[in-house]
Amino acid sequence: MRIKLLLWALMAALSLQAQEITPSDRPNKTQQLQAERGYGMFIHFGMNTFIEKEWSEGVEPASTYHPTALDPDQWVRVARDAGFRYVLLVTKHHDGFCLWDSKYTDYDVASSPVPVDVVRGVSDACKKYGLKFAVYYSLWDRHEKSYQAADFNEYIDFMENQLRELLTQYGEVCELWLDGGWDKPARMWQIPRLYKMVKELQPHCAFGVNNGVMLKGGEDGGGFDSMANPDQMTAGYTNYLRYFPMDFRLADPKIANKKDKKLYTVEGKQYYLPFEHTICVSRAWNWFQKERAMEVRSLDELEELFYWSTENGNSLVINVGPDRRGLIRANEEDVLVALKDRLGLRIGKPLPRNGEYLSVGVPAEASSSFSGDVKNYGPAWAVDGGMQTRWASGELTPELVLDFDSEQEFNKISIFEYQDTKAGEDGFSNYRENRIKEYRIDIWKDNAWENIYISSEPMGDCKLIHFPRNYKTTRLRFKVLRASDFPSLWEFNVIRMPE
Amino acid sequence: MRIKLLLWALMAALSLQAQEITPSDRPNKTQQLQAERGYGMFIHFGMNTFIEKEWSEGVEPASTYHPTALDPDQWVRVARDAGFRYVLLVTKHHDGFCLWDSKYTDYDVASSPVPVDVVRGVSDACKKYGLKFAVYYSLWDRHEKSYQAADFNEYIDFMENQLRELLTQYGEVCELWLDGGWDKPARMWQIPRLYKMVKELQPHCAFGVNNGVMLKGGEDGGGFDSMANPDQMTAGYTNYLRYFPMDFRLADPKIANKKDKKLYTVEGKQYYLPFEHTICVSRAWNWFQKERAMEVRSLDELEELFYWSTENGNSLVINVGPDRRGLIRANEEDVLVALKDRLGLRIGKPLPRNGEYLSVGVPAEASSSFSGDVKNYGPAWAVDGGMQTRWASGELTPELVLDFDSEQEFNKISIFEYQDTKAGEDGFSNYRENRIKEYRIDIWKDNAWENIYISSEPMGDCKLIHFPRNYKTTRLRFKVLRASDFPSLWEFNVIRMPE
Repeated sequence: MRIKLLLWALMAALSLQAQEITPSDRPNKTQQLQAERGYGMFIHFGMNTFIEKEWSEGVEPASTYHPTALDPDQWVRVARDAGFRYVLLVTKHHDGFCLWDSKYTDYDVASSPVPVDVVRGVSDACKKYGLKFAVYYSLWDRHEKSYQAADFNEYIDFMENQLRELLTQYGEVCELWLDGGWDKPARMWQIPRLYKMVKELQPHCAFGVNNGVMLKGGEDGGGFDSMANPDQMTAGYTNYLRYFPMDFRLADPKIANKKDKKLYTVEGKQYYLPFEHTICVSRAWNWFQKERAMEVRSLDELEELFYWSTENGNSLVINVGPDRRGLIRANEEDVLVALKDRLGLRIGKPLPRNGEYLSVGVPAEASSSFSGDVKNYGPAWAVDGGMQTRWASGELTPELVLDFDSEQEFNKISIFEYQDTKAGEDGFSNYRENRIKEYRIDIWKDNAWENIYISSEPMGDCKLIHFPRNYKTTRLRFKVLRASDFPSLWEFNVIRMPE
Repeated sequence: MRIKLLLWALMAALSLQAQEITPSDRPNKTQQLQAERGYGMFIHFGMNTFIEKEWSEGVEPASTYHPTALDPDQWVRVARDAGFRYVLLVTKHHDGFCLWDSKYTDYDVASSPVPVDVVRGVSDACKKYGLKFAVYYSLWDRHEKSYQAADFNEYIDFMENQLRELLTQYGEVCELWLDGGWDKPARMWQIPRLYKMVKELQPHCAFGVNNGVMLKGGEDGGGFDSMANPDQMTAGYTNYLRYFPMDFRLADPKIANKKDKKLYTVEGKQYYLPFEHTICVSRAWNWFQKERAMEVRSLDELEELFYWSTENGNSLVINVGPDRRGLIRANEEDVLVALKDRLGLRIGKPLPRNGEYLSVGVPAEASSSFSGDVKNYGPAWAVDGGMQTRWASGELTPELVLDFDSEQEFNKISIFEYQDTKAGEDGFSNYRENRIKEYRIDIWKDNAWENIYISSEPMGDCKLIHFPRNYKTTRLRFKVLRASDFPSLWEFNVIRMPE
């Protein structure tokens, strides 16, 4: 292990020329490596694991952190068994509590009842199991005193010191994920300085800052309002970057558009920036695990999100939070291992791909749009390739008709249904409730609609239909037969999988 | 084809000694062949296909029968593609309308606008595609005049003539399924006479009469009250037969008990009688297809019903009714082909089997039983191996605990939930509505309950969980977290599939 570490330091020293991102419309080496990894386990564990809150304020005593059976090796073993290629560990969240023994703060695991260096545990296990290791670190810090200093450089120095610890003491770090930048105007974070340091220490560490794309150019004062969502990133060379340089984009927890162009202009030069997706394995939204076990997403939904998020040079991390014992829960492990089995994920082999999406951008008609507002809720939004927009109907049993240019052959349909969300009693998680209870799908054949699918099982987040044959048609109709409220779809995908 | 027919007639003539069922506690040749077939497609098509009724009265004119694209070859091709080994065709239902050109009535396809001999079409297609052909025939006849004659022998002669047509004009018939016997006292059907004739014509044709087992001995006056259900067939040599001789039992559409003994005593001699299951592929109950397409059972439910119904020497036919065009609907074909793919069904190979059921008969405790009535609704009914009895709780969030004798290793759980049924507007079909909306499963480990599964998707008819690992435990807990009415389970199965 020691020799490996020395070798890695030598290689880092030899790669000093890779310190700046090079203008290009194609992925550079760092970005190629990121796309090849493609699929990682995101791990949120720390102070918030031990309290029924999602974002603590940095005031909980270190003693609150007290896992009873802490086992970072188990986390990475599960990641390996589930076919992940890297582990992205939250080393410090917004509360400032550090999962390693940092020289620069006492608000860390070393001051807790369980002084295990979790960063060491995870990075060692990654080496043991053959996975890459990635670091999440929050810019925003609700505990650290220098964050409130008159001269913000004091806090930048603090961060630089901590990042140096993380980037020099644990071997190769394949990715650095910075979060919470919205708490300050963008320029205050001195991203160029941080980027330079990271690249000096780890030339091929992919560097990303959450919510790094803006709707408009000019000075960014922080906050959430100026952030672009992925559906606003489909034009090449026109979006505005909030932070620069970066190697990849983040807009946690949103999903990229099918027409994601990944092309940005900065000071007249053009850059390629892939997108890393971040989702929770749980169906009820929560990043840090709480007392109550959370139900997981269905295998069908995970299959479709996997395909959608890892194609087109982008990547996906799925959050799997260890619980208060310090172990990944059985039900979360099981669904991810089952997903690996279903997709045939194998280390050393390219990631599996979905078939061809035949419906993106085709003309769509609906029997109604909510409030007659076709602009915001029209049927085109069900086939626009974007998961942040939706067709919303204005009746209980609407229908949607897709018109293909020519006869198309398909054998798979996936439907992402809009759900009502209900806040959990805990105050942070939310639950989704389904509207569509019965529905059918018809194809146009011999001058009439022919039914090919009908269901009276509630649809839910994602309905996936694998047909055991190829259907051919020029038009396809989706008809709701029973619903508890006006149905709405994020996306309706008609797909042809290869034989 | 002609030579094959002659050969078959020769073999039949040589097998005259097989005319009577031989006392035995094991399957005879006919029963062995039936168990090897194991899985058949049941086809209801006829007068009732063209009207919105399940049982017509025999008064509809023959012109009501008018398929627009009749294709019996398609039916059998679908059966082959779905991995069925035989096709059981309804040749005459209670309304008396015959699907072949019978010399003995004008109430048949020959008098209709589409005078195609459907029995010929299906039996020929069976030869073409390598499937066996079986005949359903209703004893009860609501059209035929001789059924009302003062001397019932006139009707028995009529039946014998029709059965002779069916058993001599279409090649090998592997099974004869008689129905509707409840309309008359049992002895009136002269079953020994029919059985003798069938065996003379087709020595290895398995002979069964629906609802052939009674609760009590003695004279049977007809009707439904004296019928035994499969949960009342678990003791050897004690049940009473309504009809004799028979080669197999039917109690349409009920499911056999895991402890089904198949052993009966008649006049001091002991007989082995396997059970043939009959279910619809559709989720909303209907045997004859109607105007509206019907939603099909889930693949999970079909998987578990397949395993349950084809094990232990019993067999299963699934009804797939062609529609008014005379074609099997796409959605019904698709789910059955998908089931074949999932189970790996292959002609010439033994039927796939479920793993070991570990929970049948284990001690069970529940937090409540409906109305405190443990005798009729206690938790033992959830693990008794019988699908006609159920545990019903008396609260919205009950729990059920299974206690194994010793540590057990499992990797699959299937749960059959009791559903409320709602009559369809058509007056015959019924729809099932689910109660359990959220639930969890825990195992006893290190002196505490550890969660292994949690779901907020409505349970429905059958919830099937395949775990990607073997869990070990001495106790297992099922806990409902949210329900719309007091939950109730037909059966809760803990299963170990081989690696």
